[in-house]
Amino acid sequence: MAIGIGLLGLGTVGTGTAEILLTPHGRHPLLGEVVLKKAGVRSLDKPRSVGLPQDCLTTDLNEIVNDPDVQIVVELLGGLEPARTLILEAIANGKHIVTANKAVIAKFGEEIYTAANKAGVYVLLEAAVGGGIPVIKPLKQSLSVNRITRVIGIINGTTNYILTQMTQNNADFDTVLKDAQGLGYAEADPTADVDGGDAADKIAILASLAFGGRINRDDVYCEGIRDVSAADISFATKLGFVIKLLAIAERPDFEADALQLRVHPTLVPTSHPLATVNGVFNAILVEGEPLGQVMLSGPGAGAGATASAVVSDIVHVVGVLHSDHTLQDQTGKSLNPLLGCSHEHYSTTLPIDTLKTRFYARFLSQDLPGVIGDLGTCFGQHQVSLESVVQIGLKDDCAEIVVVTHDVYEANFREALAEIQGLEAIKDVPSILRVL
Amino acid sequence: MAIGIGLLGLGTVGTGTAEILLTPHGRHPLLGEVVLKKAGVRSLDKPRSVGLPQDCLTTDLNEIVNDPDVQIVVELLGGLEPARTLILEAIANGKHIVTANKAVIAKFGEEIYTAANKAGVYVLLEAAVGGGIPVIKPLKQSLSVNRITRVIGIINGTTNYILTQMTQNNADFDTVLKDAQGLGYAEADPTADVDGGDAADKIAILASLAFGGRINRDDVYCEGIRDVSAADISFATKLGFVIKLLAIAERPDFEADALQLRVHPTLVPTSHPLATVNGVFNAILVEGEPLGQVMLSGPGAGAGATASAVVSDIVHVVGVLHSDHTLQDQTGKSLNPLLGCSHEHYSTTLPIDTLKTRFYARFLSQDLPGVIGDLGTCFGQHQVSLESVVQIGLKDDCAEIVVVTHDVYEANFREALAEIQGLEAIKDVPSILRVL
Repeated sequence: MAIGIGLLGLGTVGTGTAEILLTPHGRHPLLGEVVLKKAGVRSLDKPRSVGLPQDCLTTDLNEIVNDPDVQIVVELLGGLEPARTLILEAIANGKHIVTANKAVIAKFGEEIYTAANKAGVYVLLEAAVGGGIPVIKPLKQSLSVNRITRVIGIINGTTNYILTQMTQNNADFDTVLKDAQGLGYAEADPTADVDGGDAADKIAILASLAFGGRINRDDVYCEGIRDVSAADISFATKLGFVIKLLAIAERPDFEADALQLRVHPTLVPTSHPLATVNGVFNAILVEGEPLGQVMLSGPGAGAGATASAVVSDIVHVVGVLHSDHTLQDQTGKSLNPLLGCSHEHYSTTLPIDTLKTRFYARFLSQDLPGVIGDLGTCFGQHQVSLESVVQIGLKDDCAEIVVVTHDVYEANFREALAEIQGLEAIKDVPSILRVL
Repeated sequence: MAIGIGLLGLGTVGTGTAEILLTPHGRHPLLGEVVLKKAGVRSLDKPRSVGLPQDCLTTDLNEIVNDPDVQIVVELLGGLEPARTLILEAIANGKHIVTANKAVIAKFGEEIYTAANKAGVYVLLEAAVGGGIPVIKPLKQSLSVNRITRVIGIINGTTNYILTQMTQNNADFDTVLKDAQGLGYAEADPTADVDGGDAADKIAILASLAFGGRINRDDVYCEGIRDVSAADISFATKLGFVIKLLAIAERPDFEADALQLRVHPTLVPTSHPLATVNGVFNAILVEGEPLGQVMLSGPGAGAGATASAVVSDIVHVVGVLHSDHTLQDQTGKSLNPLLGCSHEHYSTTLPIDTLKTRFYARFLSQDLPGVIGDLGTCFGQHQVSLESVVQIGLKDDCAEIVVVTHDVYEANFREALAEIQGLEAIKDVPSILRVL
């Protein structure tokens, strides 16, 4: 039984996927049962590095989602439309979906999975998070026998590259961003990466797998890295930290069953396993009971890594089709619950105010005796206890003071901060960052 | 449909497994379909931390593998017998097997999987390698769409703990081993751990998954860590390395399809991701085309971590039983190839002589001019090119010289070494280690 594959999109990842499918020797034996039937492209004439028969190519994407010889549609278009419409049409036609598109799943996951469950087909998305790192299936299948307490990810390669470069070369954000754009590591419009939206899409997906409920994407609190300065990176280094853009999904209280979802630049202790994940590498740390901590790391992007994840999904569908004859009747009743999605409720999420975390804050103040005392008093009055207060130096005649707190409630910290900003001696608060 | 579980063994891992099964709330929903029917123990009277109904316990292990209410037998006895016999009997009775027993699989894998395929049941072993790290299923299912070139593991927690302690405290092997035994990190008879046998069992299993063929366990070349000295660790540090017991499975030439399988202490560059995996932690690095490198790391042992892996296997069997009605007819034809084992051939393995690697060697020689020249000449005559030759110091009136080679054939290195040992000036060669 040969399983027909239709590719929507033949860019870098699509080409990587085709290359694996066309060279099954030495790979998983189930790839021998797969045939690449159709690939949807913008132009038939463009020279391509992968040798596909000309009759395999089409510019009509609808032709692919309606082709009776295609059993698995691989959506590699990215973005919301026409991806959503094509996925829904393919599902309506009884085709399984493999996608690398975190945006469409984070935004339209409910609609897509409801349709898929009704039609009795799978929608798999290993490539949507963490590139070539196997994380979706381990989280959904193996690790979730634990009571997951927290998932922490470095899941945006562009920002990790930028922060790594800033750290290693003591360079500022704008310079490194420009270099990254030149090298192709950042897009011309870098918004989705540097403002944290891409990481927020991905942590929404990971949270829904780890904690077993749908996530409203807008519930993910999100701060990007535009305001991270070379100065903060340098102070962080002196204090024993590196700065990483972390995406965190947490269930602070198991009984309450409400989630804290957030993306923000974070001071990570240099001894922490995530601290050494540099450049375009990604890593996902999963914490659970009774497991403890497991970390999965690897290339978070790139044609080969992402294609590896796409094809692993194809193999999973083929494995099920191979063994499960009932599925092919499309009764819709026998989807393997380890591969299907059966979430029926939305998870409750907690506002950022209720977060309990450590903070790092940098203040510029008049260089007067008593300022540190005033800061300490203000924080203390709002139940913010401090781990350290250090006058780092002088800048433009102002004393530069760095404060690191113990674990405190974000609401308390913000109240203290508002009061501190009203103090006459305080000239500026150039940065506030959370600490892992 | 409730699925009955029978546990063979209720030691640390068995107790951890029972604790997960008895507290399904907040874990994978499929655990709601699982009932712990029987647990086989040595003594019914022993006080236990987990609350099992008394009629659940039995001292008769045969009763469990023959119980019609048990669909999945979880074997946590360890060792070769009676584990092998009980597993085979359970299979003959149509029960699926979940095991944490690397020794029985490494040794009797062919017999067990042949019987399982005939009976149409699964034998899953996520807990056999890497404790709580999801590695078996990712390697078998997702990563193997790549052409895997190499798997490198730190997969024995005891030896990693010992080497870490030796490194951090500049202590020698015997002292640290004794401490580790006191702390329960090493067994009274530490042979299987410190001589590399446990790591060899595990790399045989990983290699069979990564490269798709059965492995003859005796083909794994094996050196333990008894001869690693505090002196070598200290020299390694100076040269920019740490010493780790690595288990490596490699296919040096894709077309030749022959494997190099080995376990030995290895100098790992401090910048390498495996260098920071310390204490009882495990890590497995998988390299493939087009993926690149992925690393999976976490707790390699302990009740909770290992129980997490055991229960993840249970959930996988339940998922299949849930969706695949044909399986329950035991036709033996519809095992999901992603969970079953379909290897029919033994992989060819290469002798250690053909290995191409870097070496580190330490020599004690008379403190005479010309010795370094003689060493260099001898190595050169055997096509062993050197990266560095450093006289580290003097010891007992002898010059202590450390040599690091480029990548060379092991056979050439050994020939050169035999000649060097015949040189009058050379008094001793206290250590020879390979370099990653």
